[in-house]
Formats: sequence, C-alpha cells, structure tokens
Amino acid sequence: MSRALVTGAGGFIGRQALAALVARGFEVHAADVAEPPADASGDVHWHRADLLDADGARALLEDVAPSHLLHLAWYAVPGSFWASPENLRWAQATLGLLQAFEGRAVVAGSCAEYDWSSEQPLHEWASALRPRTLYGACKGAVGTVATALGHATGRVFFLHGPGEHPDRLVSSVVRRLLAGERAPVSHGDQVRDFMHVADVGGAFAALLDSGVVGPVNIGSGAGVPVRRIVELLAEEAGRPDLVGWGEVPVAPDDPPRIVADARRLHDEVGFAPRFTLEEGLRDTVAWWRARA
Amino acid sequence: MSRALVTGAGGFIGRQALAALVARGFEVHAADVAEPPADASGDVHWHRADLLDADGARALLEDVAPSHLLHLAWYAVPGSFWASPENLRWAQATLGLLQAFEGRAVVAGSCAEYDWSSEQPLHEWASALRPRTLYGACKGAVGTVATALGHATGRVFFLHGPGEHPDRLVSSVVRRLLAGERAPVSHGDQVRDFMHVADVGGAFAALLDSGVVGPVNIGSGAGVPVRRIVELLAEEAGRPDLVGWGEVPVAPDDPPRIVADARRLHDEVGFAPRFTLEEGLRDTVAWWRARA
Repeated sequence: MSRALVTGAGGFIGRQALAALVARGFEVHAADVAEPPADASGDVHWHRADLLDADGARALLEDVAPSHLLHLAWYAVPGSFWASPENLRWAQATLGLLQAFEGRAVVAGSCAEYDWSSEQPLHEWASALRPRTLYGACKGAVGTVATALGHATGRVFFLHGPGEHPDRLVSSVVRRLLAGERAPVSHGDQVRDFMHVADVGGAFAALLDSGVVGPVNIGSGAGVPVRRIVELLAEEAGRPDLVGWGEVPVAPDDPPRIVADARRLHDEVGFAPRFTLEEGLRDTVAWWRARA
Repeated sequence: MSRALVTGAGGFIGRQALAALVARGFEVHAADVAEPPADASGDVHWHRADLLDADGARALLEDVAPSHLLHLAWYAVPGSFWASPENLRWAQATLGLLQAFEGRAVVAGSCAEYDWSSEQPLHEWASALRPRTLYGACKGAVGTVATALGHATGRVFFLHGPGEHPDRLVSSVVRRLLAGERAPVSHGDQVRDFMHVADVGGAFAALLDSGVVGPVNIGSGAGVPVRRIVELLAEEAGRPDLVGWGEVPVAPDDPPRIVADARRLHDEVGFAPRFTLEEGLRDTVAWWRARA
C-alpha cells in the first residue's frame, strides 16, 4: 500500500489534500506544527513536527517511512509572507527534506514564480520565471531542485473555500457581506484564475498519484475578472448593495491578468475539477454562512 | 574601506578573483576549507572555514564582518559534480549564508541553469531556464533567491587557465600534447564560449564592485568551435600531429551551441576582458609548460 506523508496538513490546502488522498486509497499521514483540527478524520494518522528543525524533519521521515511526500508546509501569514525572511528558512528546510526523502515527492509551488508580465496564459516551461517577491523566488528555487530530482511541483494560482484565512480576498468580502457590512473592493478589472480549495487539494493528490515530473499549474485554465467573482459572491450572499466598487486602490504594477495554462494538469495528470466557478463560490459562501 | 569576503578562495576562479579585488582597492578576506595556496598573496587575509557547517559559516561572517561577499565555494569534482547530492548541501549552505549576510553579495552561477536548446546566445532574462542537471538546478535555485534579495549572480560559461583541474577539456589536451602523448578529442564541431580564468575572476570582481542586480553571464559573447580551441592549443604546443580528431564520441544530446549574450557584463557591469581568445590560450599553454 502506498503511504503518503502530507506536511502543512492542517493548512488550507492540506486538509483538502488529506481527504483526496484517502479517497485514492493511500495510507495517509499528516504532519503539522499545530494540533490536528478538531474535525480531523480518523482515517488519517497525525504527527506533530516542526519541519524547520532539520533533526525533527529527518526523524519524521524515518518514523513514517512514506513512499509519497506531499510537501505543503511553508510560511503563509497573509501579507507578510511575500517578503519575510522565513521564506529562506523554508527553502532550506525543503531542500533538506528532499535530500533525506527517497520516493515520489510533490512540492507546493506558486504562480508567483512566473514573470507576471508574460503573455497569458502562463505555461510551465514556455513562460519566463521572474518572481517579483522573495516568496516567489524561494518557491521557484525549491521547485527547480525538486524537478531536477525527478519530482513534481504544483504551482498554485488563486483559491477560495472552506477554512481560508479570514483576511484574504474572497473570505473577507464574504464575511462582510454576510455580516451586513460594506465590502470595499477595487475596480475588479484584474483577471485571475480561481479554483475551489477542494479541487486544489484534489489536484495535488492526483499529481502525487501520477508519475508527472516537473512543474504543473494548479489552476482552472479560465481567467475571470475579479469583478465577476465579487458579483457572484454578492448575489449568493444576497447583498449586492453592500459592494463598494472602486473603494480599494489598485497598485500601479498590479498585473492585469494572471491565468494558468491548465493543459498539463488536465492532459498529463488527468485531473478534472469537481466544481464550476459558480458552484465553488456557492459552496464557499455556504461554508462562511454556517459560521457567521 | 570596502571589505570583501571570498569563499572558495583557493579554487580555480577564487584565486583570480582575489587579485582582481585587491587591484580594485578592497580589503580582501579569503575563506577556504583547505590551506591557503603556497603562493598566496600577503595582501589577502586567509580564513579556514567549512561553509557546510552552518555555525562555522555564521561565525566566519561575524568574524570578518564583510561589506561585500563573493560566494564561489561549491562542490566541484569534475564529472561527479553534475549529479552529486552535495549540490543540495551547497544550495542549503548558500541560502543560509545569504540569510546571515547583510551587504552586497555575488553568487557564482552557471550556464547550466539555462535550457541549452534555446536560441543562442543565451540571455539572462529572455532565455528559458531548464537545467538538465542537479548542479544546474541548485545553481539556478540559489541564483533566483540571490536576485530576489537584491544581489547578483554570475553565470559562468567555459573557462581555462592557470590552476585548472588537470582533467578538464583544455587542461587535459594541453598536458598530453606537452608530454608528447596523443590527445584524443571529439569532432570539435560544438560551439562554446570560452574565457581565460583571469578574466572570469576579473568579471566577478567587477560585478561585486557594481550595483547590478540579478543574473549576469560571465562569458566572452563569442562562440568558438571546440575544434578551433584545440587547433590553437596544438599550434601553441607545437604538436598538431598528436591530436586524435573524432576519437572521443559525442553524446547524442550534446548541445551544438552554448554561447553567452555578454551585453550585461559589458554594458551594465562595464567589464572588458584582458585576453583575446588567442592570447588567453597562449597564456594557458605557457602555464602548463612551466609545470610539465
């Protein structure tokens, strides 16, 4: 039986990846620096581990002896993650994990690895890599090494869904609308590639379960204006009147389009998302409504 | 006064970079895991240090407190360096150095970071990065991070000169010819970009002394068939009769051309090489002759 170890397992994507790996028949081991979530499935073996401690990371690998490694753990505090020196520590820790592990690994990458001014959609090999941020650079660095070692990396685009940090785009807008508060947003003309987090987790599980080597975009392949996302959220929340269009300024260098070429994910990994954009956003609003 | 710390200072490029930095007026500190060379200049302060030991590396930085860091140290055993897991250790050690250092840093990169099947000459940003080897991937990884931190990386192409490991292309051919032995070579049709190591060291010193950020090719900008290199060496050694053309097979995937676009080095860094190809090879043959 294949045994998968998932790092960052208690995180936004990790929790979804666990379920997808169980569904694929893996014996699933979850590692996180924090306690398991209260609703953790009994099908998953949880391990407390600080992967920034190299000895602890090696001990975890020896203890679990996984055939498959899905490495999602990273520094992810909204806002500060872009430039934090923690990115350097996570890059080093990731290289150490890859050095110690023998088996099939998938590492979480990011659309921030690309040159965002490239022609869209962004293609894994054809598009230039020119990260603007230390986060994008460190993700690119570990992805390059993972690829050279015969592993894969999933370059995550934009996402939403159950368990998102409350201060990100979709979560903050939904929470305000559901609370009957004004939700200031930008003009919304930026085109982005959004996926429901359950599909992101499912895509990572499919990638881990495949033999595909190198970078694979984890995106829908469809660019949607942020305006359309906000309209759908407002409609579902029943409060289009509360959206404050244009009240959030847009940085002059904010890229007009960031969209994945999703052909590798579909054709080579063989993954198809479960949710359409509308269904996914409906699910997300329902999840936040149950917690409002 | 600017104080430069050079790692891998006893190596092929390191020794040349030390002299070039002294000439530029730096207070120069040299670090190497090995003893200083017997002919080490009295103008340079030598430090014994194993940079793979994170504590030792940090202690070295605290001890020297350099304003400038030229990081050349890496695993470099001919042949085995391409795929060795030592590349992972050096990538981690390099990220650790960059994390601990505050100042201006230049890291040694490699033409092996590029997709060699790209259109030539290879340009720092326009050409795709798709390393074939773990060495190229790890060099690319640390270069990406160095760039994001506002530092620079010098992507070294092909080189020759005093102090080269005796088993590399130019050194092995010259040694055989000078010893009156047959020198088997390939057909020599491959086009490469060769530079004399004194110019490579000089280019690194110029890059460190500049404010240029990001990758810079360290190459001449001129592609020369390996056949022409061997002809010049044989002529200078006076033994064209000993060259065994076509006696070394060429791998089917051996790239026909690997040539640097050297405009950044010339125009932005302001570096001009001291040697022409012919002068450089003459100097190299003279150096080996004195040791034959």
